[in-house]
Amino acid sequence: MTPKTIRWVGDTNGHVELIDQTLLPVECRILSIRSVKTLWEAIRMLRIRGAPAIGIAAAYGLVLGLQDIQDDASREETVKKINESADYLATSRPTAVNLFWALDRMRKTAASLPAADTKQLKERLLVEAEAIRDEDAASCRAIGRHGADLIPAGGGVLTHCNAGGLATAEYGTALALMFAAREQGNTSFRVYADETRPLLQGARLTCWELMQAGIDTTLICDNMAGHLMGRGMIDLVVTGADRIAANGDTANKIGTYSLAVLARAHEIPFYVAAPTSSFDLSIPDGSQIPIEMRQSEEVTHLAGQPTAPPDVQVYNPAFDVTPHEYIAAIVTEKGIITKPNSQSVREHFNSIQAG
Amino acid sequence: MTPKTIRWVGDTNGHVELIDQTLLPVECRILSIRSVKTLWEAIRMLRIRGAPAIGIAAAYGLVLGLQDIQDDASREETVKKINESADYLATSRPTAVNLFWALDRMRKTAASLPAADTKQLKERLLVEAEAIRDEDAASCRAIGRHGADLIPAGGGVLTHCNAGGLATAEYGTALALMFAAREQGNTSFRVYADETRPLLQGARLTCWELMQAGIDTTLICDNMAGHLMGRGMIDLVVTGADRIAANGDTANKIGTYSLAVLARAHEIPFYVAAPTSSFDLSIPDGSQIPIEMRQSEEVTHLAGQPTAPPDVQVYNPAFDVTPHEYIAAIVTEKGIITKPNSQSVREHFNSIQAG
Repeated sequence: MTPKTIRWVGDTNGHVELIDQTLLPVECRILSIRSVKTLWEAIRMLRIRGAPAIGIAAAYGLVLGLQDIQDDASREETVKKINESADYLATSRPTAVNLFWALDRMRKTAASLPAADTKQLKERLLVEAEAIRDEDAASCRAIGRHGADLIPAGGGVLTHCNAGGLATAEYGTALALMFAAREQGNTSFRVYADETRPLLQGARLTCWELMQAGIDTTLICDNMAGHLMGRGMIDLVVTGADRIAANGDTANKIGTYSLAVLARAHEIPFYVAAPTSSFDLSIPDGSQIPIEMRQSEEVTHLAGQPTAPPDVQVYNPAFDVTPHEYIAAIVTEKGIITKPNSQSVREHFNSIQAG
Repeated sequence: MTPKTIRWVGDTNGHVELIDQTLLPVECRILSIRSVKTLWEAIRMLRIRGAPAIGIAAAYGLVLGLQDIQDDASREETVKKINESADYLATSRPTAVNLFWALDRMRKTAASLPAADTKQLKERLLVEAEAIRDEDAASCRAIGRHGADLIPAGGGVLTHCNAGGLATAEYGTALALMFAAREQGNTSFRVYADETRPLLQGARLTCWELMQAGIDTTLICDNMAGHLMGRGMIDLVVTGADRIAANGDTANKIGTYSLAVLARAHEIPFYVAAPTSSFDLSIPDGSQIPIEMRQSEEVTHLAGQPTAPPDVQVYNPAFDVTPHEYIAAIVTEKGIITKPNSQSVREHFNSIQAG
């Protein structure tokens, strides 16, 4: 049995367990996390990563934060603590919107219970965090069901970074299409996994997940994608998303934009798979998505060894934005948004509310 | 003073010295090479690499091979030894044509001296190998002079892999444009160097060379190129070449094709810089260029540490082919081939013969 990406252990005085993804695939170490500060560090250092998974982590974080105050503390003190923890966790990483979405949902839950005392709030917030986790797991299954048919029998699928079970509660977003396709009897497709520099989430995590599921998996370097497309080896590209603007512009792991442009040039469909919690309808387009810049050492060192001259300048954005024009469809847990743009995204959310 | 990429030390009984490029930039170790077999290994393992440099290495290799036979050996024995060494060295790497070009030139030199005895052949072949080295050095300077104006003041230049002094006798091909631009007083341009997975020649070698020359250098991961282009940070792309077909189709380090397609999509000119010895006029187009496939471990391990699951399948081509339609111009030591195609390449070579 594969351990859970992230889970809560025990009652409101319990703790978070998560796989330290920086050690995979060499070691599958489970971390027990008992403070907001340690959780912040785990998110910041990518011990847990993937937009849906860090949303779940942040929700659990608010429960951890409340362990610092007594059950008979005043409601004012409790709400103050929730806000402090939420504000702090919100500084861990700037791009994935699920982090802010989950924190907001937890704050709103507290605000919606004006009569609850501190003990009740602790219990209610743990229930809400577990609901966020469970809903994400269900979303991922639904994404897989909706998108599985996009993978043709015998087809070549290219994916980037890790949008699998490790990036979510379980089962994944982009990889959900592959898992679901296989469960539906399509066992003849092949997946090419971009290694995804600088932190190699594709090599370390995606290959690991796909191989565990028995899927035919081939690792490539990021710069090989165009060559494979040119040789007719790729029938579709599918990635996850860290934040999707109201017009469908999608922030995802650096390198995604290059893939989308290459796919367009080779007339290969480029798909995004993400839960609706990855949409940020408050921003009209991708230009307003903050792009996290990370430290040089991620690029200049490997396994602690320098691979570039000391003091070389490094440009290391963690994400890029793919304009919606490059995206053939976005697969959510509610269905497929074909040719995403402001109107089709709005219609998708309207139909959810109507439904 | 930077040591020479490769040089011959002593008379016909001397040896080859070359920088072990697999250790740069951490260590600049000079290897003394005294046998054809050790030289073959140095080429195969990329201790020396870059199309022009391995041509020079192969030429020196034939001189090393002749050290196995006595000065009073028969001409038949000498020619047999030359052919044996040449056939063996030709198996070291399949893609760069300069290797075969240099070996052919050395064989023809021997054939052109039917009256020479073995001692004279040894001396004449060393002279020829030194000529190949010296001509390459001169070619690189000329490439720089012809192409320097392609770099605008204040411009952003993207390059891939290492087409610098370390890939040639000295001064480089793609990097020659940058060195020459700087020597001509253009000090305000900036170079972005793709790290170039899997072996990181961009991070390890190109950054090292550019920084030694005082050029503003920023290291990026290969998958960031499209993002930089989309943000208007790149004004031109320039790479070297390992083999150029008669119609201008160009084999170069894996990832070059992706850059060319991305450059086209962003209306950024894509240039190739290479000596005429990198042209293979015997093949009409790039489909006939053999692409070297290298071992999985280059992708699955870093600094000896595994970064992917054991037994994952890996696709690891060392090169790709960029169709001539994507190339704005090829800069050779004889001038610039604008919009390369069968006709313009033929005209370039006709004008060389006429001149």
